[in-house]
Amino acid sequence: MISLDLIGIGTGNPAHLTLQAIERINAADLVLIPTKGADKDDLAGLRRQICAQVLTNPKTQVAEFALPVRDPAITDYRARVDAWHDAIAGIWADTIRANLGDGARVAFLVWGDPSLYDSTLRIADRVAALLPLKVRVTPGITSIQALTAAHAIPLNQINGPVVVTTGRQIRDNGFPPGTDTAVVMLDGELSFRHLDPEGLHIWWTGYAGMENEISLSGPVASVTEAIAEARASARAAHGWIMDIYLLRRV
Amino acid sequence: MISLDLIGIGTGNPAHLTLQAIERINAADLVLIPTKGADKDDLAGLRRQICAQVLTNPKTQVAEFALPVRDPAITDYRARVDAWHDAIAGIWADTIRANLGDGARVAFLVWGDPSLYDSTLRIADRVAALLPLKVRVTPGITSIQALTAAHAIPLNQINGPVVVTTGRQIRDNGFPPGTDTAVVMLDGELSFRHLDPEGLHIWWTGYAGMENEISLSGPVASVTEAIAEARASARAAHGWIMDIYLLRRV
Repeated sequence: MISLDLIGIGTGNPAHLTLQAIERINAADLVLIPTKGADKDDLAGLRRQICAQVLTNPKTQVAEFALPVRDPAITDYRARVDAWHDAIAGIWADTIRANLGDGARVAFLVWGDPSLYDSTLRIADRVAALLPLKVRVTPGITSIQALTAAHAIPLNQINGPVVVTTGRQIRDNGFPPGTDTAVVMLDGELSFRHLDPEGLHIWWTGYAGMENEISLSGPVASVTEAIAEARASARAAHGWIMDIYLLRRV
Repeated sequence: MISLDLIGIGTGNPAHLTLQAIERINAADLVLIPTKGADKDDLAGLRRQICAQVLTNPKTQVAEFALPVRDPAITDYRARVDAWHDAIAGIWADTIRANLGDGARVAFLVWGDPSLYDSTLRIADRVAALLPLKVRVTPGITSIQALTAAHAIPLNQINGPVVVTTGRQIRDNGFPPGTDTAVVMLDGELSFRHLDPEGLHIWWTGYAGMENEISLSGPVASVTEAIAEARASARAAHGWIMDIYLLRRV
């Protein structure tokens, strides 16, 4: 039986690592690092940097592998993602077989936390069909915490519900029902611009938790343009951007 | 100007501390520890334990203070909480004035993360009316991450929204609209028992992240009784319980 540790590493700041994450990285016989594909190269760089900073166990091997790309010939979105996850699981299994030796513990570093809009747990389920595997999760700081920390704001109103959702949901279905607070992730196009700005405030952060973090906030009606400009120029400067925002009816 | 660091410490496991949290605890001139009132004594114990384990700066002072209790003579809930937060802010300001000396940095350790169903940010706003204060937040592992880690499950369905809410909301308003996934916090009475169990699964964890963590999961229709029994006996054994659960329509 192989033990697979999926370890949340926070949102790009090596200081987000927990003591538990560091302990489990060092307890691993093998750390897997994906180097291409959907993951930005910066993320492979972050994983390497973290291993360089905290990995003190000389017996721990680090194995890099190239992620496959999604097959554009599969037109159905869900089928394309399923095939892609199957391909990734196959590469994980091959990389583990080739590098684990007589060890038993494999670790994989997950951006943020493995529970939140991340496919690693689903890929691990597929690896478990190929190898005898027991999965354990180590929680990590998510971009939601990094966002609220950047602005020093509460996530919720007193006793109030909060919706965590995606840009696509906001675009297709509008502001979520039954709440005054929505956190929006995975939004490549500032989808809040589809909403009625009346009475709506936004707290927006790019590169949440990282050195080049940028934050803007205010009434949607008055800060949308500044956010769009900041996002576009940061993206141009860095080659990529990851952003997140909180919307609140006030 | 006094710098106040509100530092998320995770959900009761000292290994949840991030490197950033440890760095900022050690950068403080004064660490405030509340010892009574709404906080369970176990929580004061955890804060002391964390200071004992990670505080290596001999110049950092630790000051304990007793939290006031809420005034039962104030019948309006919101007014009672407001008065209580004012009283706490006054004690913070007094404790800072009495102990900070010529230092400038105060730290306060917050269970979980300061953004999530926690009053510390609101109290800090009131302290800022009494002292010149600049507030900074350090994100911490929340019980939501500890819950999903305990069960090794994703929080969201693919691209799906998630509602984070309270027991009171579930009891008064039923299952949240517009989502198949709800995380329920601050629930002293397993309020999911008010919902139609048909097609509803639950992942429940008591003492999430801690040594005595207990987890149960399954269809609501078949595990409710086991959860109620586990919760009651754990509460009797420990004198208190903090629990959280995820509900998903499957």
